[in-house]
Amino acid sequence: MNFVRKILKSRSEKDGAFFAELEDILGFKTKRKKIYKKAFTHRSMNKKDAKGNSVNYERLEFLGDAMLSSVISAYLFTEVPSGNEGYLTKMRSKIVSREHLNELGRDLKLIDLVQSRIPKDNFGENIHGNLFEALIGAIFLDKGYKYCERFIHYRVISPYVDIERLEGKVISYKSLLIEWCQKEKKNFKYDVYEDTGNDELKHFAVKLFIDNRVVGKARATSKKKAEEKASKRAYFAFQKQIST
Amino acid sequence: MNFVRKILKSRSEKDGAFFAELEDILGFKTKRKKIYKKAFTHRSMNKKDAKGNSVNYERLEFLGDAMLSSVISAYLFTEVPSGNEGYLTKMRSKIVSREHLNELGRDLKLIDLVQSRIPKDNFGENIHGNLFEALIGAIFLDKGYKYCERFIHYRVISPYVDIERLEGKVISYKSLLIEWCQKEKKNFKYDVYEDTGNDELKHFAVKLFIDNRVVGKARATSKKKAEEKASKRAYFAFQKQIST
Repeated sequence: MNFVRKILKSRSEKDGAFFAELEDILGFKTKRKKIYKKAFTHRSMNKKDAKGNSVNYERLEFLGDAMLSSVISAYLFTEVPSGNEGYLTKMRSKIVSREHLNELGRDLKLIDLVQSRIPKDNFGENIHGNLFEALIGAIFLDKGYKYCERFIHYRVISPYVDIERLEGKVISYKSLLIEWCQKEKKNFKYDVYEDTGNDELKHFAVKLFIDNRVVGKARATSKKKAEEKASKRAYFAFQKQIST
Repeated sequence: MNFVRKILKSRSEKDGAFFAELEDILGFKTKRKKIYKKAFTHRSMNKKDAKGNSVNYERLEFLGDAMLSSVISAYLFTEVPSGNEGYLTKMRSKIVSREHLNELGRDLKLIDLVQSRIPKDNFGENIHGNLFEALIGAIFLDKGYKYCERFIHYRVISPYVDIERLEGKVISYKSLLIEWCQKEKKNFKYDVYEDTGNDELKHFAVKLFIDNRVVGKARATSKKKAEEKASKRAYFAFQKQIST
């Protein structure tokens, strides 16, 4: 009896940690817990429900992919009133590209939440994007379209999507930001340090200071990439001031 | 002055007829009227807004296509819990196929609402599906996702989507219906007549009577097609009785 209680307790503690971490990523409280557990269950777990249907995140990917696509479509439709159908389609496919979704999932460290029988190092790159899509599918089922839209704005559009950049008009956020700092007589400093953590690949972390305040942080596989990413984030934080 | 008033009056009468017809198709009252006018404006009208952006339905197609895809995805996800990602994707592409969308748009006679400088006979087949997609885009902008979903359930899923049929398990609704009538000792009669109307192609209309009551009507380019279509509609009306 004690033994069972112990197992149950350790399970609920684990669940508690899972949901604490997840809700931190989501920015809201979850309701239908099971759906989120499914969104982070890898097929290698071989889980089945009472009817014999597979319980893993693959079906949720299908749903999340469709939701992501429609939220991005609505965003582009409103944001680019001069763009024709072909242009909008092209922009959308850039935003929801495999590469970009992998970046999003990786940055949110979704892989840390996954339940799997396969060691995490053996997953390919695509698991990051797949988990991100599955998570969006889970949000849709739990909270509906509006929350899904809000999450995508919060985690995809506002930190990453920039029409000018997608159009290839902005070449480097770093140069944009430096130019602005010089014009505005602001001090800036990129503080780069190695931060490989548990990754196999070497990683760099960077903090970007403007007037001694951290305005952007990022982590990537090269110094240059990490600086650019931190600059991009800072750019969005200052966007209004920079563009006026 | 009288002349201007006359023009304005005739315009508002025309608008009145347009919205009466449209709301009949939609099943709800529209709010943002302009969006629906746009959804039925062909590029040949060469309309531009104050900022010089083109005003026609093409951008709305892009939006409607994405919304349709996500509503159908959510439907399939819930309805087919045993289907894996690949299966769900295949089913979705059958439902939103060009051919199917054209059929939907044609059945709703959306082309009657279009504003164009090109004679309607000169449009290709795809205009029907394009208008249908644009209309969905307009609904999304006017009323949001929920209404969009409701409309798609009302006009796409409930009258047309049948998983068994999509899987190729049902070969003919006519034979299914006849079999059922014989088993249940019901009289049935297909009443076919030519009804070409304004179309260039010969068309046939059919009324399907069961026990002297019209249970399905359809119109198509061959007798066989019209009969099958009417049977399909009757099948859905009787579905519960037939499948139990």
